[in-house]
Amino acid sequence: MGEVFLAEVLGTGMLLLLGAGVVANAILPKTKGFGGGGGGAWLLINFGWGLAVFAGVYVAFKSGAHLNPAVTLGLVANGADNFGGSAALEVNLVNTLLYLAAEMVGAFLGAVLAWAAYKQHFDEEADPATKLAVFSTGPAIRSYGWNLVTEILGTFVLVFVILHFAHTPSQLGPLAVALLVVGIGASLGGPTGYAINPARDLGPRIAHAILPIPGKGSSDWGYSWVPVVGPIIGGVLGGLLAAAIA
Amino acid sequence: MGEVFLAEVLGTGMLLLLGAGVVANAILPKTKGFGGGGGGAWLLINFGWGLAVFAGVYVAFKSGAHLNPAVTLGLVANGADNFGGSAALEVNLVNTLLYLAAEMVGAFLGAVLAWAAYKQHFDEEADPATKLAVFSTGPAIRSYGWNLVTEILGTFVLVFVILHFAHTPSQLGPLAVALLVVGIGASLGGPTGYAINPARDLGPRIAHAILPIPGKGSSDWGYSWVPVVGPIIGGVLGGLLAAAIA
Amino acid sequence: MGEVFLAEVLGTGMLLLLGAGVVANAILPKTKGFGGGGGGAWLLINFGWGLAVFAGVYVAFKSGAHLNPAVTLGLVANGADNFGGSAALEVNLVNTLLYLAAEMVGAFLGAVLAWAAYKQHFDEEADPATKLAVFSTGPAIRSYGWNLVTEILGTFVLVFVILHFAHTPSQLGPLAVALLVVGIGASLGGPTGYAINPARDLGPRIAHAILPIPGKGSSDWGYSWVPVVGPIIGGVLGGLLAAAIA
Amino acid sequence: MGEVFLAEVLGTGMLLLLGAGVVANAILPKTKGFGGGGGGAWLLINFGWGLAVFAGVYVAFKSGAHLNPAVTLGLVANGADNFGGSAALEVNLVNTLLYLAAEMVGAFLGAVLAWAAYKQHFDEEADPATKLAVFSTGPAIRSYGWNLVTEILGTFVLVFVILHFAHTPSQLGPLAVALLVVGIGASLGGPTGYAINPARDLGPRIAHAILPIPGKGSSDWGYSWVPVVGPIIGGVLGGLLAAAIA
Repeated sequence: MGEVFLAEVLGTGMLLLLGAGVVANAILPKTKGFGGGGGGAWLLINFGWGLAVFAGVYVAFKSGAHLNPAVTLGLVANGADNFGGSAALEVNLVNTLLYLAAEMVGAFLGAVLAWAAYKQHFDEEADPATKLAVFSTGPAIRSYGWNLVTEILGTFVLVFVILHFAHTPSQLGPLAVALLVVGIGASLGGPTGYAINPARDLGPRIAHAILPIPGKGSSDWGYSWVPVVGPIIGGVLGGLLAAAIA
Repeated sequence: MGEVFLAEVLGTGMLLLLGAGVVANAILPKTKGFGGGGGGAWLLINFGWGLAVFAGVYVAFKSGAHLNPAVTLGLVANGADNFGGSAALEVNLVNTLLYLAAEMVGAFLGAVLAWAAYKQHFDEEADPATKLAVFSTGPAIRSYGWNLVTEILGTFVLVFVILHFAHTPSQLGPLAVALLVVGIGASLGGPTGYAINPARDLGPRIAHAILPIPGKGSSDWGYSWVPVVGPIIGGVLGGLLAAAIA
Repeated sequence: MGEVFLAEVLGTGMLLLLGAGVVANAILPKTKGFGGGGGGAWLLINFGWGLAVFAGVYVAFKSGAHLNPAVTLGLVANGADNFGGSAALEVNLVNTLLYLAAEMVGAFLGAVLAWAAYKQHFDEEADPATKLAVFSTGPAIRSYGWNLVTEILGTFVLVFVILHFAHTPSQLGPLAVALLVVGIGASLGGPTGYAINPARDLGPRIAHAILPIPGKGSSDWGYSWVPVVGPIIGGVLGGLLAAAIA
Repeated sequence: MGEVFLAEVLGTGMLLLLGAGVVANAILPKTKGFGGGGGGAWLLINFGWGLAVFAGVYVAFKSGAHLNPAVTLGLVANGADNFGGSAALEVNLVNTLLYLAAEMVGAFLGAVLAWAAYKQHFDEEADPATKLAVFSTGPAIRSYGWNLVTEILGTFVLVFVILHFAHTPSQLGPLAVALLVVGIGASLGGPTGYAINPARDLGPRIAHAILPIPGKGSSDWGYSWVPVVGPIIGGVLGGLLAAAIA
């Protein structure tokens, strides 16, 4: 059980180190990947997050690499017997909480490492919203109801499609889910920046609140429940629908 | 048979949710992927559609994941015994109509969901042609004859190459057709926006006509037959030529 | 033997339809992919050509999908017993000429189809060099000696790496060579536009000379030998070195 | 042993020919891929380096394709029995030095070939820093301490994830490490240009110092230890942690 916890922490940490990293690269001042928004930079961010998933899934092979409470809860809703991975823990309340805790811890730690990698660029003058955007998502147009709809749809796609992977043979390994995440980001990331993962958003938001970043501004707690509640609803719906039509 | 219908609806719905979604992200105002046209944004759109196919194919494993009347009719023209997928329905008139109907229904529903995901961005001020372009294709230079030629060529490539997949072993699974669609979009999408799929264009056009989108303008019914007739001709030619040289 | 000829014609035709197509999309006026040069458009072109190879290789499974005289001659230089593919013709003078002829015919026909797909955009006002660039490559800085060096290096990489594919197991199928071509274009395409294939350059150049394109200008025959001779040298060197170290 | 040396030289040479090549294409004057920085050009560079790894790994199948002293030393730190590849040499001091020497020689030679491919573009007027940047990395904001942190993190990810590949089955072959390198570049390349490989940086820096490049300026030896020491620390940490949790 400790091994599963550690695997899920390390995998989610890898996810955030690389995921927050690519956003830092695209939007912080003076980086080599600075693109100032626009279609080219968005594709860079989409591939960066997809490949962050790719790396994280390899690292968390013992835990089945959920890396995401919406995936964990989607599996519960789907009626799975075990949580997957080489350890294949039974689905029950204690183990569910174990996964959620590990994902939060990992996401927090990964965001701290991404901050360290881009320390000097965080210390440059920049819009506070830009600095927050490396850690957590925010809406392009704020409207909690519609923002929630977008997050529900994106996470529904993630969990519903993952639960179909086993039916079509391929040997893509972790590349399948990586490409799915590239696609969700490209297609459904426009309005809210696609959290589609409560830990990915909340863990780094806590890191943002704690870390000594010059001129960092608010952590936008008013929005913070949307990328938690939306993905949980979407993931559970994905798990339920996949079970209903299986 | 109901299972096949449902699978094809869900798969084509997934295709349009993600496919219309990436166009919305690239061209609607204030999205995070807004790129204002140009090479970078086009590649974003190409990958977005390719990965929309990727996700849709996993979802529709029971029906063989045509997601496209041109593929269904191409298989008929090719002389296939069954429509593929885990259900493998016999090729006959009733089943053909079942597929076409499912594809239309799925494409309509997927476009409605994409509209919901980008609701606030549709409500922003924008050129009516931009709002239509999220749903349906349109010509860069209007000329029904040449636009038809382009759609015939693009869909011919799609169906002809798909019918060759089985001859070369690989374990790419749905990634093969996803990459083929990325390639067709990159290479042959410039003049008409590559419908290469009658349902993908007509279903969302109906959604555009019905949905309450502020300032939406015409659904351009004058052009609507081109992305229906062209892909059907191209798909049937692809199926016939593949059979002739097999 | 007729089957092999036809397969190689169709595969090389597919290569040029999609390969010339992506260049047309990126540089001809008013297309949806128009990017006006720059890093984003170049990546679009690189992926377009790579996926053109991807599609062409599936189509030419009977002939082993050389699609390129430099590959055919590289195999001869390597001392191969047969030309690969499901037909696996013996390596001899007649069969070598059969491949070279099929590749030239296919490349010519594919370029004509790409012209048809973009007919209206060719009819728009544009720099004559832009119109030629859809068909054939040209140097960024003209210097036959150094241009030759670049083409030799690019084609050497192509043939040398292809001849190593068999030593490392994977199930990527045609994706391996497609990605290799994306990489060669990204890395070594800057000075000459990476012909790395005599048929890919000469066949379309003949098409350019013949087709009725308004305001098309010269076919630049002065440069035309470079993308023929360079790739042949590079391909033969790749075949010889791979044999020497095997 | 000579075969392993040669394989590692050729593979690392391929890595640098294509890796330095894509940077040349993106930043030297008048190339076809010139993108002037920004998100689109960065993604081009990320894919170019990833596919450089892809090609190099195929070429160096006999040696296990480290192509990187940080990987070699990471394997030593991990406690591996042999260095991998079809030759699978025992891990000992002599063989370790053999690998390091081959990687340095290969990186030097590959950079020379990339220079030859882009000879005319190096002869154009350009900022000396731009000419150096084709060969070696440099910091976006100079601060040896933080630059070191970034290189340690990037190389840690590389080695740590590679050492997890074997636990998750897939048939991606060299594509897995290629995509990992695309991801590390996209996500952690912003501050220092991601050397993540001492030979990749030092070998070409020596080539830069020796080659007759007009207006080339300093080889920035003051920074040169960072992309050597950082990757060694990161690779060793990756090897140790992977062993600790195995």
